[in-house]
Amino acid sequence: MDKKFLLAAKWILPAWDREPIKDGALLIRDGKIESLGPREELVAQHPGLPVEDLGEALIFPGLINAHTHASMTIFRGLADDLPLMTWLQEYIFPVESHLKGEWVYWGARLAIAEMIRAGVTCFCDMYLFEPWVIRAVEETGLRAALGEGLFDFPSPGYGPLEKGLALTEDLLQSYEKHPRINIIVCPHAVYTCSPETLKKVREIAERHEAIIHIHLSETEDEVQQCLERYGRRPVAHLRELGLLNKSLHIAHAVELTEEEIELLASTGVSVAHCPESNLKLGSGVARIPEMIAAGVKVSLGTDGPASNNDLDLLSEMRTAALIQKGLRRDPTVLPAKEVFRMATEAGARALGFPHCGRLEPGYQADLAALDLETTSLTPVHDPLSLLVYSARAGEVSDLMVEGRWLMREGRILTFDEKETRTQVTLIAEEIQALLRERPTP
Amino acid sequence: MDKKFLLAAKWILPAWDREPIKDGALLIRDGKIESLGPREELVAQHPGLPVEDLGEALIFPGLINAHTHASMTIFRGLADDLPLMTWLQEYIFPVESHLKGEWVYWGARLAIAEMIRAGVTCFCDMYLFEPWVIRAVEETGLRAALGEGLFDFPSPGYGPLEKGLALTEDLLQSYEKHPRINIIVCPHAVYTCSPETLKKVREIAERHEAIIHIHLSETEDEVQQCLERYGRRPVAHLRELGLLNKSLHIAHAVELTEEEIELLASTGVSVAHCPESNLKLGSGVARIPEMIAAGVKVSLGTDGPASNNDLDLLSEMRTAALIQKGLRRDPTVLPAKEVFRMATEAGARALGFPHCGRLEPGYQADLAALDLETTSLTPVHDPLSLLVYSARAGEVSDLMVEGRWLMREGRILTFDEKETRTQVTLIAEEIQALLRERPTP
Repeated sequence: MDKKFLLAAKWILPAWDREPIKDGALLIRDGKIESLGPREELVAQHPGLPVEDLGEALIFPGLINAHTHASMTIFRGLADDLPLMTWLQEYIFPVESHLKGEWVYWGARLAIAEMIRAGVTCFCDMYLFEPWVIRAVEETGLRAALGEGLFDFPSPGYGPLEKGLALTEDLLQSYEKHPRINIIVCPHAVYTCSPETLKKVREIAERHEAIIHIHLSETEDEVQQCLERYGRRPVAHLRELGLLNKSLHIAHAVELTEEEIELLASTGVSVAHCPESNLKLGSGVARIPEMIAAGVKVSLGTDGPASNNDLDLLSEMRTAALIQKGLRRDPTVLPAKEVFRMATEAGARALGFPHCGRLEPGYQADLAALDLETTSLTPVHDPLSLLVYSARAGEVSDLMVEGRWLMREGRILTFDEKETRTQVTLIAEEIQALLRERPTP
Repeated sequence: MDKKFLLAAKWILPAWDREPIKDGALLIRDGKIESLGPREELVAQHPGLPVEDLGEALIFPGLINAHTHASMTIFRGLADDLPLMTWLQEYIFPVESHLKGEWVYWGARLAIAEMIRAGVTCFCDMYLFEPWVIRAVEETGLRAALGEGLFDFPSPGYGPLEKGLALTEDLLQSYEKHPRINIIVCPHAVYTCSPETLKKVREIAERHEAIIHIHLSETEDEVQQCLERYGRRPVAHLRELGLLNKSLHIAHAVELTEEEIELLASTGVSVAHCPESNLKLGSGVARIPEMIAAGVKVSLGTDGPASNNDLDLLSEMRTAALIQKGLRRDPTVLPAKEVFRMATEAGARALGFPHCGRLEPGYQADLAALDLETTSLTPVHDPLSLLVYSARAGEVSDLMVEGRWLMREGRILTFDEKETRTQVTLIAEEIQALLRERPTP
């Protein structure tokens, strides 16, 4: 690859708060954006520089999936339309107790292929056997914030909690200088982690200046249980334990009072909104317009593909916008540019990648391109509208991280996508065999 | 094409209430399904018959888009996130006043290509210059229920109302015996059609045993306006005018009381639920679980692509299911098979095609196939879940109407898709020029 080149396309949408550039180009140097503007101008300023031309395409900042459990692709469609506890106790937990590193690895690879096809250049992951996810990210070239899920009971991944904490510290040290991987500290939730665990987690995070990522206020049940056990709601519980600050990134935040929204805003906590998972599991709808009005940093995630059932962040933008408009009976609520901000710049900042999420001088060349020679993306009255309200995974033709192509003309370049599907299909057969053997409920 | 052949695939999902068949086959004869079952059995029963094998694919009954304005693809993304009246009065109406038959034709062709790629074999359309939509349907081979939109004020399509009524009767006569086209009678809404107009519409429909299709109870405003003007809500208004019966197919039905739901059920009226459009325009969420519990026949539509912004009925199934689960905080509400019924059999019956929407002996060979060699459709734990919760337009590889392939291996066979995109792009440039010339609001 050239260290310095021009990347041109019919349209470039540099950031959520910028106008699209028609017949635009980006000057990319050593994996970073050096400048951008009309193609003619850039070509004139840099004669002789190679031009890579994507043609009838829309280049946009790579999307940031701010909350997922990528490897759960292996469970996609395993059991839907069930009460949460039936789903967990009769399907997910029995199978997860047999989880292996290899399953997590192949599941993550499949998820990465799926996310690349949805224009995602960076994701945030919390799961079991996370070192296997790290391996998949290193091999495939995506950017990610990754952490081992921590909880009080023994984990099939690391065994007793102390080993999970030690693993987390090891990873924090090993990947301290990695350009594309941020290790994060991932206590699962307030109902699976005792106050003592959360204090230990906080100490580790402070020692390494790491982000803490936790599921919080996802359901009414969680809030009730927290109230009963600790006499306070989840947000107050974390404040009491000293966790509410700008290093905290919480997933879901469906159940928040006005005061809690204010508190998240004033302490700089960031929220990963996961509307499709919240709908599908019957958790409810987070109060995103209120959070944004209060100044909470809201990003966007798909959650795991077992409760979504995809990793399509393009469609997730659309769902996020549509549901708020419908519920408030106001089509002006949560406009396209606001959800695009959530899925780009806001996510990048929440995950500790402040130079991602925009295509501007000094930012990383993490970007994707929509193929505009697509019937459902015709005509182009408004590139932003097309991206947020019409585009779907599968319509992304090209994707780059740090100036390196991971997908070109619909072909993934850094790993074997077909082999990955084959491996996941074999794993799914093992899972089906396990479910047949489980005791009948 | 062979008049009689076997069509095989890894999976066949015959109908919403049938189990999927692994390694299955369909015997198709003269455009109809003659039998189906395990491939091995069918091959043994019919030695020597040609077998068309789709391989790693999931065959399902073609979806039925029960409400749209297909040609509005030309307005896709023209203006979003605006109050309904601003959108209509400053964008859609000024442009529609310049509408031409050619625009409607190319817009419909684009929509048909988009619907084919979403597994849709049949759609219901109400718009202006509908004869141009009919032409597109005849040329492209889809199945459809089509009607000219009728209202009291002059139409850019037909001029004064009397001409619209005459046009409708002409079409009803001309297409009486068409195997794939049902002409329907389409009064636009109770706020655009006087009681006199609705009476005339009813007479025409009765004379020709035609379906009447109307927008009804879409918004609170519509209900209020109807109450003020006629002293009754829209459903009661139609009952009064003698329109509530099993030939009536209404779009939206967001604003219904318990009594109205009972009335729609007892009179056999069918409803086209359009959840994404209802959300995006801020209209609200229809009470689908109550309607189904009461016995209302509920089908599924995308509405026009200017308020959606796509024609992806696969995603529409998912949205329909997710939103009810989220709002009711119950993941068991509106399960996959129920929304699949809405998008197949229920739609087919509502549009007067009782032998569509299922793959069973005696039914039309109207079907589509998902390409299972797709990362986001891996693994296959449950074909129905995959179709409803994970599949997207663009992942459909093959589509057949009346035993005739309209798309094979991702290539549309009956018309030039690329030329269609080119024409719609040129129309969009004309529309942009018109908007630049319009008086500043």
